Amino acid sequence: MLTSGEKIYKLAEQLFPICRSITGDGVRETLRQIKERLPSLRIHEVPTGTRCFDWTVPHEWNIRDAWVVDPDGRKIIDFQISNLHVVGYSTPVNAEMDLEELEQHLYSLPDQPNAIPYVTSYYKERWGFCLTHEQRQPLKPGAYQVMIDSELKNGSLTYGEYILPGQTDREVFLSTYVCHPSMGNNELSGPCVTTFLAEWLAGLAERQYSYRIVFIPETIGSITYLSRNYEEMKRCVIAGFNITCVGDDRTYSYLPSRAETTLADRVALHVLRNVHPGFQRYEYLERGSDERQYCSPGIDLPVASIMRSKFGCYPEYHTSLDDLSLISPEGLYGAYSVLLKCLQCIEADFVPRATVCCEPQLGKRGLYPTLSSKDSAMAVRTMMNLLAYADGQCTLLEIADKIGRPMWELVPIAKRLCAESLMKNVG
Amino acid sequence: MLTSGEKIYKLAEQLFPICRSITGDGVRETLRQIKERLPSLRIHEVPTGTRCFDWTVPHEWNIRDAWVVDPDGRKIIDFQISNLHVVGYSTPVNAEMDLEELEQHLYSLPDQPNAIPYVTSYYKERWGFCLTHEQRQPLKPGAYQVMIDSELKNGSLTYGEYILPGQTDREVFLSTYVCHPSMGNNELSGPCVTTFLAEWLAGLAERQYSYRIVFIPETIGSITYLSRNYEEMKRCVIAGFNITCVGDDRTYSYLPSRAETTLADRVALHVLRNVHPGFQRYEYLERGSDERQYCSPGIDLPVASIMRSKFGCYPEYHTSLDDLSLISPEGLYGAYSVLLKCLQCIEADFVPRATVCCEPQLGKRGLYPTLSSKDSAMAVRTMMNLLAYADGQCTLLEIADKIGRPMWELVPIAKRLCAESLMKNVG
Amino acid sequence: MLTSGEKIYKLAEQLFPICRSITGDGVRETLRQIKERLPSLRIHEVPTGTRCFDWTVPHEWNIRDAWVVDPDGRKIIDFQISNLHVVGYSTPVNAEMDLEELEQHLYSLPDQPNAIPYVTSYYKERWGFCLTHEQRQPLKPGAYQVMIDSELKNGSLTYGEYILPGQTDREVFLSTYVCHPSMGNNELSGPCVTTFLAEWLAGLAERQYSYRIVFIPETIGSITYLSRNYEEMKRCVIAGFNITCVGDDRTYSYLPSRAETTLADRVALHVLRNVHPGFQRYEYLERGSDERQYCSPGIDLPVASIMRSKFGCYPEYHTSLDDLSLISPEGLYGAYSVLLKCLQCIEADFVPRATVCCEPQLGKRGLYPTLSSKDSAMAVRTMMNLLAYADGQCTLLEIADKIGRPMWELVPIAKRLCAESLMKNVG
Repeated sequence: MLTSGEKIYKLAEQLFPICRSITGDGVRETLRQIKERLPSLRIHEVPTGTRCFDWTVPHEWNIRDAWVVDPDGRKIIDFQISNLHVVGYSTPVNAEMDLEELEQHLYSLPDQPNAIPYVTSYYKERWGFCLTHEQRQPLKPGAYQVMIDSELKNGSLTYGEYILPGQTDREVFLSTYVCHPSMGNNELSGPCVTTFLAEWLAGLAERQYSYRIVFIPETIGSITYLSRNYEEMKRCVIAGFNITCVGDDRTYSYLPSRAETTLADRVALHVLRNVHPGFQRYEYLERGSDERQYCSPGIDLPVASIMRSKFGCYPEYHTSLDDLSLISPEGLYGAYSVLLKCLQCIEADFVPRATVCCEPQLGKRGLYPTLSSKDSAMAVRTMMNLLAYADGQCTLLEIADKIGRPMWELVPIAKRLCAESLMKNVG
Repeated sequence: MLTSGEKIYKLAEQLFPICRSITGDGVRETLRQIKERLPSLRIHEVPTGTRCFDWTVPHEWNIRDAWVVDPDGRKIIDFQISNLHVVGYSTPVNAEMDLEELEQHLYSLPDQPNAIPYVTSYYKERWGFCLTHEQRQPLKPGAYQVMIDSELKNGSLTYGEYILPGQTDREVFLSTYVCHPSMGNNELSGPCVTTFLAEWLAGLAERQYSYRIVFIPETIGSITYLSRNYEEMKRCVIAGFNITCVGDDRTYSYLPSRAETTLADRVALHVLRNVHPGFQRYEYLERGSDERQYCSPGIDLPVASIMRSKFGCYPEYHTSLDDLSLISPEGLYGAYSVLLKCLQCIEADFVPRATVCCEPQLGKRGLYPTLSSKDSAMAVRTMMNLLAYADGQCTLLEIADKIGRPMWELVPIAKRLCAESLMKNVG
Repeated sequence: MLTSGEKIYKLAEQLFPICRSITGDGVRETLRQIKERLPSLRIHEVPTGTRCFDWTVPHEWNIRDAWVVDPDGRKIIDFQISNLHVVGYSTPVNAEMDLEELEQHLYSLPDQPNAIPYVTSYYKERWGFCLTHEQRQPLKPGAYQVMIDSELKNGSLTYGEYILPGQTDREVFLSTYVCHPSMGNNELSGPCVTTFLAEWLAGLAERQYSYRIVFIPETIGSITYLSRNYEEMKRCVIAGFNITCVGDDRTYSYLPSRAETTLADRVALHVLRNVHPGFQRYEYLERGSDERQYCSPGIDLPVASIMRSKFGCYPEYHTSLDDLSLISPEGLYGAYSVLLKCLQCIEADFVPRATVCCEPQLGKRGLYPTLSSKDSAMAVRTMMNLLAYADGQCTLLEIADKIGRPMWELVPIAKRLCAESLMKNVG
């Protein structure tokens, strides 16, 4: 019997080998496997050339194989070993060239000599190979055979959309991306954690809010999705999370929405402060993922990010070192449970108002110790504090922050007070 | 000739022996003695069973005597020695029982072995005795005679109300409670200090505001009073203070209203910062007296608390150690004078506006040194600062905070500027 | 070829010897020499007795000579050596008197024995001499000859006004004063720096805003000027600076407007934080120059002050030690360039709004590196940050503060984005 964390990790292992990019069969295969868990996932194809705001859906890219053979006939770079070896969106090539010419197509990291860097060139036609600096150093002059069996042609951009209706059409938005080849924290952690959040949401007996969950390629995917849906989203989305870098177990990170104080931000901070008070807090200036689109002027969605180690802030970022060993069942589950708590807080939030003036007489309802002594006054403190701030002006979440208790401690108390008709929802 | 502090202390000595509770003759006798100083104090009786919001006025409780006699025939607990020995609202009992049964009715404090705890059971019928742990320890098995000559029956809840009309019907509210038996800081200090504040107010030649001063039992008394008066109070009260724990001389304490920034809060902070800057600042979350009712949702009165050692925050609290030796003339007078300064600030506050554009020429009015030199610029600084901020947008109190001077330093200057027609009240 | 700082210093040297006061020929001569550089400077005369708000234009004062001769026949105080020797606005006197009587008319500084203090008596008729304490100490009893050849009579108050029209009638206001006799930092630095700012503004090919620049006597001059112009100024002035104490090179100082958050304040803080982050920050409570009038209730202009060593805060203030050696080309130029940057920021400010939803595709416009790698994401950070906050809700200046870059770094980027039609001014 696997733990939840192990189940998420297992999905990451399963999806890891697929060579994803912003378009192509790698995305389709990834979505197909996710759809096995989320049968109503709807897969959309947007044709090459489709105008999306300032952008155009690019050619679709697919790749079958790629290698470099050195003057001694040894295959020194091999796409079959790591799909990171090829610059993303490389044009096809099949040629012999000397080292000097080849060098202009090689990418390595002198400071991280054992890491293959992750490099892409979506919008300018290029080809290239990425390799470790340790691989590159010993290369000697001579004739190299270079082959990239790729294809750039009209096709489509593929994304998945998972809609869960709730009691109202106001919705919570989750976004993650499926365009990174074989890397772990950034990025298989996002789609895997999101898949399990979607499963949990699908299993709820009732949902206060509707949910819109998208599995998209980064940047061009979110822009494409927004260009088709932003008006409805601006009307409906009350909170959203961009789910990325949720797999390692080194830290927790928070990056605000541009507006900084949306419901998504307040929930994220409430959960992190109560569960992982040592979390790292970033500024919107340190953004770098799809919040750039969701929070852009004119879009202005309330989308915040909760991460483990943030993109750009850990040494293995965008290299082959960000592999399955960097993420862990514990790391994935930690992010999953924080995000789950956020969703639970949003679902449980309401605007409570005490129904009677002055404190109610809790004693006659069995809610208060009947013998008053030096210590007993503290016993029902939380219940009284909740009532004291239930003035119909602030939400349960805001009260939780004000009285310094986690929201999940207040929810059952609030339920009991509502059941006793001492409190009601005036939201 | 007694000092003011000694006079307040003497009243505390006089009222100390009376056995008060939330109802009964102890409250009546206390109010009768206060009425000797405040002849127009009006005493109200509210019958048992009267509905007050979520509460009902309970039976009236009176007690004549109570004791426990040990197997050796010695009276080991005696109500005549301390009225704290009997649990408040104890039902009558007259029985013989063994130690084991008696133990279930005894209350003592192992951590404070020489203190009789103060225990009550207003809303569940019980009887019990409180004793020091030192008294309790040597008790040996055997037959004990137990007697409580008390009475719980239909009667009424008694409170006192003192109304002083002013130039407007906007009013300042003072509340204190008269339900505690023989204890000093919490609580004879409150009614004693409040009596002297009321005397001072009654002696004023004119009052800008009306004053509503109540002497009530805690909790049920404030709820009862509010249920009869809250609509008028919500319309009229501009600031209020709950006066409790104002007798010892260890510290000053401030507890805000729920809204935190009412006139009462701003005045309290202004006075304490200027007179006792080392005061303790509490949060509304640490409340515990009648501010719980006055600031409750739907009531929302601007009531703050200024205390010496706050309830629950000093070791003698709610025990027999909180006696007349804990409070002092200096302690009582310190609280009295801070509260008096608050009332004086409220009375003197207005919205000043400079009547001329630019700085006025103070020199021609004899308000400015005529010889300008290196130092003279500072001499009329406070007057100029007052004028500089007298823009008709903020009150004298707000200006005092802004320019960093106590309000009582600004009041005579403001009077002079008004007399010179350089300033006027636009409030 | 002189540097800008040397040119400003040279003007200070030229104006230094003139004996200025709040009225009289010294002001006229100073303005005449400034008019040589600013030909369209308009010189106004306001007659003695003119009512200006609470004030009246005083008699005009002129002085030709003054001295004290000691019992030995030596001229021990001589106006020709320093015009600070005579109390400003001294009535004429020509008499013999003993030391005791003379002493009542002498002003010196025991703590600064080598400094002549600067003393005036504008609104009470007096005469007096200022001298160093070293000069005063050896005076011995005997008959002293005392002569002040001055004149107090109906005349006028003189000020200069320099108006530069811009594209709108919204204007930036600069004020400096020309009433101090021979002193350097306070005050020849102000008119000299202001003259060069005016020259720079006059040379601009186009100005977004109009400019109103006044050279006035302090206090009575600003009050007089406001009484004639405040309604128009309240309608038009968007930001202003009181220019005083801008000549030494010890520090930079900022004193806010009374409102504290006007455009003038925000620009001043932006420039100082980015260029001289160690600047001294004062409160409006520490004001002392014409901001007292410009920010007074009813006038309420957005006028802040940027200074080098602030009036009243350096030891030489208002003494003969504040001479040409205290100021320097570097000191004057430092203040000049900070004020110039403020004017440039105001001129360049606008309300940018991104024209496309989501991030624009910078690559296709040559604004973005086409090869995405680990470092390239940071390369266009500032441009992206500017676009990310260009929501039509805040000015370029506010965005500069938000993204932590100096405004002058954003201006060319904003221009390029506007040229690419990716941004427009919606202000």
